[in-house]
Amino acid sequence: MNAEIITIGDEILLGQIVDSNSAWIGQQFNLLNIPVTQITSISDKPENILEALKQASSRADIIIVTGGLGPTKDDVTKQTISTYFLKPLVRDVMVLEHVQTLFSRVAPGKMMPDINQAQADVLEDCTVLFNDVGTAPGMLVEKEGKIFVFLPGVPFEMKYLITNRLLPLLKNLVAQQPIQHRHIITIGLGESFLAEKIADIENSLPANIKLAYLPKLGLVRLRLTQIGESAESIDDFHTRFIQRLGHHVVATKDITLEEAIVETFSSENLKLATAESCTGGSLASGITAISGASAMFDCGVVSYHNNIKQELLGVKADTLEKFGSVSEQTVIEMAEGVKKLAKADYAIATSGIAGPRGGTAEKPVGTVWIAVSGKNETQTRLFQFRNDRAVNIERTVANAFAMLWNMYIKDKSN
Amino acid sequence: MNAEIITIGDEILLGQIVDSNSAWIGQQFNLLNIPVTQITSISDKPENILEALKQASSRADIIIVTGGLGPTKDDVTKQTISTYFLKPLVRDVMVLEHVQTLFSRVAPGKMMPDINQAQADVLEDCTVLFNDVGTAPGMLVEKEGKIFVFLPGVPFEMKYLITNRLLPLLKNLVAQQPIQHRHIITIGLGESFLAEKIADIENSLPANIKLAYLPKLGLVRLRLTQIGESAESIDDFHTRFIQRLGHHVVATKDITLEEAIVETFSSENLKLATAESCTGGSLASGITAISGASAMFDCGVVSYHNNIKQELLGVKADTLEKFGSVSEQTVIEMAEGVKKLAKADYAIATSGIAGPRGGTAEKPVGTVWIAVSGKNETQTRLFQFRNDRAVNIERTVANAFAMLWNMYIKDKSN
Repeated sequence: MNAEIITIGDEILLGQIVDSNSAWIGQQFNLLNIPVTQITSISDKPENILEALKQASSRADIIIVTGGLGPTKDDVTKQTISTYFLKPLVRDVMVLEHVQTLFSRVAPGKMMPDINQAQADVLEDCTVLFNDVGTAPGMLVEKEGKIFVFLPGVPFEMKYLITNRLLPLLKNLVAQQPIQHRHIITIGLGESFLAEKIADIENSLPANIKLAYLPKLGLVRLRLTQIGESAESIDDFHTRFIQRLGHHVVATKDITLEEAIVETFSSENLKLATAESCTGGSLASGITAISGASAMFDCGVVSYHNNIKQELLGVKADTLEKFGSVSEQTVIEMAEGVKKLAKADYAIATSGIAGPRGGTAEKPVGTVWIAVSGKNETQTRLFQFRNDRAVNIERTVANAFAMLWNMYIKDKSN
Repeated sequence: MNAEIITIGDEILLGQIVDSNSAWIGQQFNLLNIPVTQITSISDKPENILEALKQASSRADIIIVTGGLGPTKDDVTKQTISTYFLKPLVRDVMVLEHVQTLFSRVAPGKMMPDINQAQADVLEDCTVLFNDVGTAPGMLVEKEGKIFVFLPGVPFEMKYLITNRLLPLLKNLVAQQPIQHRHIITIGLGESFLAEKIADIENSLPANIKLAYLPKLGLVRLRLTQIGESAESIDDFHTRFIQRLGHHVVATKDITLEEAIVETFSSENLKLATAESCTGGSLASGITAISGASAMFDCGVVSYHNNIKQELLGVKADTLEKFGSVSEQTVIEMAEGVKKLAKADYAIATSGIAGPRGGTAEKPVGTVWIAVSGKNETQTRLFQFRNDRAVNIERTVANAFAMLWNMYIKDKSN
């Protein structure tokens, strides 16, 4: 049993939005042991929708369609699926009442435009996936043994409908071979070296256990996938890889480095503080995005201007004048300053030229200093990134957290 | 002339990464007047790759394939395209030398693993897209009037190759009908009301000018698309929509609210400061992600702990004790405190319970106070979001910037 996702809407094809819905749906279906085998993004032209539905249903058992259920003229999905299934659209009384209620809440006393009434139209005989958190209802249709699901493209409405409406229904409709995944998050070894280090274990994997390497920004994520049953279990191999990789292992489950930091610091009662110039709040928001961060993070300062570096963090005017704000001396004083200010155990500081402007011959765009201050020392590194602003910031953040993790491991082994 | 994108790799289907590459490619091709008409994400199984290549080339003139060019066992793209084009892989001497150089830089003195040598293998007779910023070269192949482009999946390598290798080549290979886009970013009107307000203009659009509504987090982005020539130009309609929408217009080009804020504040010499609790740095990083932010942003404080709210922002102990950290009184003092600290003209402060833990009966998860302090007053709003942590933070940020914009418009009209 497998699923495919079809996303409808020009905005993905034009690159105006990134399709994060499909990733989330992929995760959910994987947990249900129903792999997503294809994702197709098409424009909202009826002929494209019809063709994509036909093709997807020739390959997959479940077809999830998102997008195109809004009230305005550019949304043609409902008319088109009416054609595809040879069924008329009918106005659902419960949905209409709900749309009317939501409308009155947002615009009390105003008449609901006709255009909104049509949001209550659903395919005749479909299972309506009632949308408590928005106006567009989802629909589930079964045809020739295939399950078609139509959902709004607004991420939180789509998520609500899958979690609360679709998954409970699906559990009754499907049954299949178990798929299991195990993960190892590693740091400090490139993909090739990692592969060589574990080659013998990888070569001894049975045919139904597969290993994938997912390198990203200094970390390599290893994913073991077992389909069906196996004499030697996926857990045995998971353990063997973990033992072989030793201190390169950051986590033995599928979490980010930020999650590993929040989890480890919280359980060991350690506090982190951040002082950011070029990353501009991304270190702090990366940590505070993780639930539970308040146990290990009290304070972050975004000191974009030199005055703030001096007044809040205690960077010396002399240091700024002599070495400049993008310098080893400045990031050291920023890190140690914020550590003291926040009474933290660890601190990270960044200062650099994210670009695209502000570079000089001596300090070109992409010049970044990072300092990490730990229990016994403050370490620094100079980076020369050669990318655009967003990537320079992203790589600074990734390297800063990697430096923090390495400092933590070093302190721990001392 | 049109293009399709094929992304190869289980990690997108499993939802472990979000496909941001395709959005970027979509933007680039749109500028070249070559619409991307489909994006297909498939796993790295040879049969799926072969089928996707066949289907895409039956519909599109240009087929961009990303991913699967890495050195490890899970990357099968190159072997498969060798089968598809009936051409052997040959080792490229220049690429091999480059891979060797890069390798020596990362791991000086170490022997390069065999696995890396294969990265220099390219399809016989292809145009090699030399990759200065990574090890995997891109490839361009022409077959039966179609152009196939194979690129690594690592975003900055893919971007580098498209910008510096592919686009200069393509400009010589293609010519076609012009496509033009115009945008209007609006605030303060829902999609339906907006549609009603401009219905007469929309109904008078000629057949080759199309209007799309792209609502997102309180803003609605209008996109006009003109294909080919038109008696009445797209610019006339753009102007008519702008005039009709008046003060609801944030920008008349395709930028984000954050970009509009940075641009407007910079040109009017206004400074913004942020004091964040529940958003944890996302306001600051949202602003500093924009090039030029340093002209209007000096200081952000992430005050996750009450001590920091008191010490840095001057929130009174009495206020925190009487009303709690998630309260109107606290966000007012945070906003006014950071405005004073940073000597700014405007300040935003947030405090709330992002979740999933930390809620109480009185202040459930999703309770968020936002304050915006402007030239003459400090305004507050209470929100009750009902989402997960990431969405609660995202919506707080979106609402905070919307409140800031509205305050700015109000101050300006006074």
